[in-house]
Amino acid sequence: MTLTAHSIIAGTEAESPSVEAGTTAAAEAFPVYRATTPEQRGAFLDSVASEIESDTDAIVEAAVSESGLPEARISGEVGRTTGQLRLFAEVVRRGDHLGVRLDPALPNREPLPRPDLRQRMVPLGPVAVFGASNFPLAFSTAGGDTASALAAGCPVVVKGHPAHPRTGELVARAVTRAVAAHHLPAGVFSFVLGEGTELGQELVRDPRIKAVGFTGSRGGGLALVATAAARPEPIPVFAEMSSINPVVVLPGALADGDVRALAEAYVGSLTLGAGQFCTNPGLLFLPTGADGDAFLAAAGEAIANAPGQRMLTPGIADAYSAGTARVEGTQGVRVIATGQAGDGEHAPAPMLSEAPAGLLTGTDVTDEVFGASGVVVRFEDVEMLLPNLERLEGQLTATIHFAPDDAEAARRLLPVLEEKAGRILFNGWPTGVEVSHAMVHGGPFPATSDSRSTSVGSLAIERWQRPICYQDVPADLLPEAVRDDNPWGLRRRVDGELE
Amino acid sequence: MTLTAHSIIAGTEAESPSVEAGTTAAAEAFPVYRATTPEQRGAFLDSVASEIESDTDAIVEAAVSESGLPEARISGEVGRTTGQLRLFAEVVRRGDHLGVRLDPALPNREPLPRPDLRQRMVPLGPVAVFGASNFPLAFSTAGGDTASALAAGCPVVVKGHPAHPRTGELVARAVTRAVAAHHLPAGVFSFVLGEGTELGQELVRDPRIKAVGFTGSRGGGLALVATAAARPEPIPVFAEMSSINPVVVLPGALADGDVRALAEAYVGSLTLGAGQFCTNPGLLFLPTGADGDAFLAAAGEAIANAPGQRMLTPGIADAYSAGTARVEGTQGVRVIATGQAGDGEHAPAPMLSEAPAGLLTGTDVTDEVFGASGVVVRFEDVEMLLPNLERLEGQLTATIHFAPDDAEAARRLLPVLEEKAGRILFNGWPTGVEVSHAMVHGGPFPATSDSRSTSVGSLAIERWQRPICYQDVPADLLPEAVRDDNPWGLRRRVDGELE
Repeated sequence: MTLTAHSIIAGTEAESPSVEAGTTAAAEAFPVYRATTPEQRGAFLDSVASEIESDTDAIVEAAVSESGLPEARISGEVGRTTGQLRLFAEVVRRGDHLGVRLDPALPNREPLPRPDLRQRMVPLGPVAVFGASNFPLAFSTAGGDTASALAAGCPVVVKGHPAHPRTGELVARAVTRAVAAHHLPAGVFSFVLGEGTELGQELVRDPRIKAVGFTGSRGGGLALVATAAARPEPIPVFAEMSSINPVVVLPGALADGDVRALAEAYVGSLTLGAGQFCTNPGLLFLPTGADGDAFLAAAGEAIANAPGQRMLTPGIADAYSAGTARVEGTQGVRVIATGQAGDGEHAPAPMLSEAPAGLLTGTDVTDEVFGASGVVVRFEDVEMLLPNLERLEGQLTATIHFAPDDAEAARRLLPVLEEKAGRILFNGWPTGVEVSHAMVHGGPFPATSDSRSTSVGSLAIERWQRPICYQDVPADLLPEAVRDDNPWGLRRRVDGELE
Repeated sequence: MTLTAHSIIAGTEAESPSVEAGTTAAAEAFPVYRATTPEQRGAFLDSVASEIESDTDAIVEAAVSESGLPEARISGEVGRTTGQLRLFAEVVRRGDHLGVRLDPALPNREPLPRPDLRQRMVPLGPVAVFGASNFPLAFSTAGGDTASALAAGCPVVVKGHPAHPRTGELVARAVTRAVAAHHLPAGVFSFVLGEGTELGQELVRDPRIKAVGFTGSRGGGLALVATAAARPEPIPVFAEMSSINPVVVLPGALADGDVRALAEAYVGSLTLGAGQFCTNPGLLFLPTGADGDAFLAAAGEAIANAPGQRMLTPGIADAYSAGTARVEGTQGVRVIATGQAGDGEHAPAPMLSEAPAGLLTGTDVTDEVFGASGVVVRFEDVEMLLPNLERLEGQLTATIHFAPDDAEAARRLLPVLEEKAGRILFNGWPTGVEVSHAMVHGGPFPATSDSRSTSVGSLAIERWQRPICYQDVPADLLPEAVRDDNPWGLRRRVDGELE
């Protein structure tokens, strides 16, 4: 193993990772951790955030060095990661995620009495989380999947991404310190590190693991989904995988707006972080006509002036170059502009190309190219646009640029985009995902393997839970969440109505 | 085809079913149906209930004749089915299932402003529902899966169960009348009928189908799960499959109670409806000692006096006989009592047997035998009981019989049973599933293929939904559910807090 960082199994650093030691400790920790009160769990999540902050300098240094991403971006990502932990702490303390429902007994109901029924959500069990290459903090060791699973009451075993092992180790140590400070069982958190895919496969096969969170490639995600489904006890996988995030520019947005500024903003989103965002706007629909021509010319100019940025790993840069070559080599595709390769070994040039609408099916022009490669498709009117949107696969985001004149067209596009994407934006760019209660970072396949949830925002907690009903359980045996005296002060649903 | 009833494809009766016609009509109906208001959808669900009631006599006659179940049971099931539809209508009108969250824009936030974010749940798309053999109404054509999918805004294509084709046809006609009366697209509901498994497989493979609901055998459920996972676009399957519903009788329940009455109540639950309940108590843990001996003797006596009842189909009766033969032939198993075979051709005798705890792993004694076959395992103390419970697969229900003296033991069992089951009962029997808000008819695999939901009760609606986030969408383009003026009067979460 060439990694220069350690695995941390239930509080103990180890040169070589033992998946089984981590999952065994997680399974042992589960009964204790699941029984923590909202206050205890909230305080622990807050501590994880504080422990990360207390080591910010070292974490930022490691992450900048390992990822090649700018310091400002990484510092922002630290804040995003700790902010998400604190948001989840707030949600856990409020306890709404427990989804409590009470249907009181109706002993005199005819023809049959109704028993006393009480429902709450419980955690699924130990969760395996796979760190992402492109967000060494916010989608990695203590990122959204880990934070939401811990919030739900699930111990976590993280498979660190080999592109940023030291960053992962530092964050894992921070989580481990918080576990110890709160006198939780050490198995609440483990971090295993290794090259190749076998370690991750072993983790997903392990019978103690009850769910999986993943952010990465379509191939990687589907491999884990297949492994999870083939287990004697299949388990749910939330894999966030592949999205080209279509953007539709409607005519009014060009007629009413500053076309050059809009084109530059597009290229800014396309090339941000070397294009290594799940929400990168890889496909843009642009009106035919002079305004569209002007937009395309300005975008081409901006691309030509955009330097290549160092990508996360040489492998990712190679895949990007193969992807752009594939797009470029597709008959009918015209390259609009190519930027300059950047300094260093894996900083390939951004590329902007144009494809006729007919290429959106039957070719792989719409397969995600991870990096700063954008494809533009021209359209004459909404009639032509709609079937092209309908043919797209599921997406994380869909964006419309419009002016008030375009309202009728936007109204027709909206329901089609709702069937395709987890987030719909107007007059903005999809890169940048707010961490809040109403966010959805999810969407129909292949954007994710399970469109019914999100990997960002407080709804993400619900991925790791299942409901239990208590029927005629004696009062002094009931869990606090469903007790008559409501010691946690939860908002509860009684006979279907919120108290 | 030997079935004597018709398929009904989008309002039109057909001798031979066309899956594609049904799914095409469903896909065409989806954009219109998903856009119905809570009031429109609630009124439609109420109408489905009324239309079923208007044909109660014919439906009861058909279902009694096809299933062999008693008229009182079938009449009760009609009421349960219509009651569930009306409960879902109430939930839909209230709109809580839309799960609306609003995070208002923070234009002055530093370092970056927050956009306006609004979240609501939307329906997944057309749903395939498989009718169950054992509940010709409540888990079939207009049963829980169909009612919850329609409530969520999903068109439904039902694959009727060939054991009760006429019942299915009559109910399908009732739904079809309601669709027409409410001027909804005919494709909102279709009903296809056929022998064998190919029709169902074709339905699950169809790209227009976006989710599947199933109640039936483990083999049948897993076959559909595999097909759904192998699609180019995999889709979620909620399959309710296999459960032996463990019951633990604690010593106090015997010492304090009427042992004979308790034993008779057990046999009553075990033999109810020829034991053809998903929640049939197939495994009972009984204390060693004189009280346990007395319980077992009384239960054996009750079984010996219990006549075999006609099972749903000859095939189900054959599978039951093979199952009981398998249990009887397992080395170490002792048959306590066998009842009398009933009149007619497929009314096999109930059976009660005892197995040593050691047989709970490594043999198939714990595989579900669908029918009136119970296995009793004796235990000396909770220490011996716990590992046996931990070894069980996932269950729909787990039951404890106890008296106040047993509180300490029950307290230790509860968290273990919470990890195994979707519903936990005290001092009752698991057969009989209340339709209400707090009910859970679900549980860890293999009780279901997805423990995160339920197929009975109002939480079932959420199976067929996914979240969408609207970012900076202009006010006049927003859907009603997330508009500032809240025209539907929904309870909404603003910055995470319920209004």
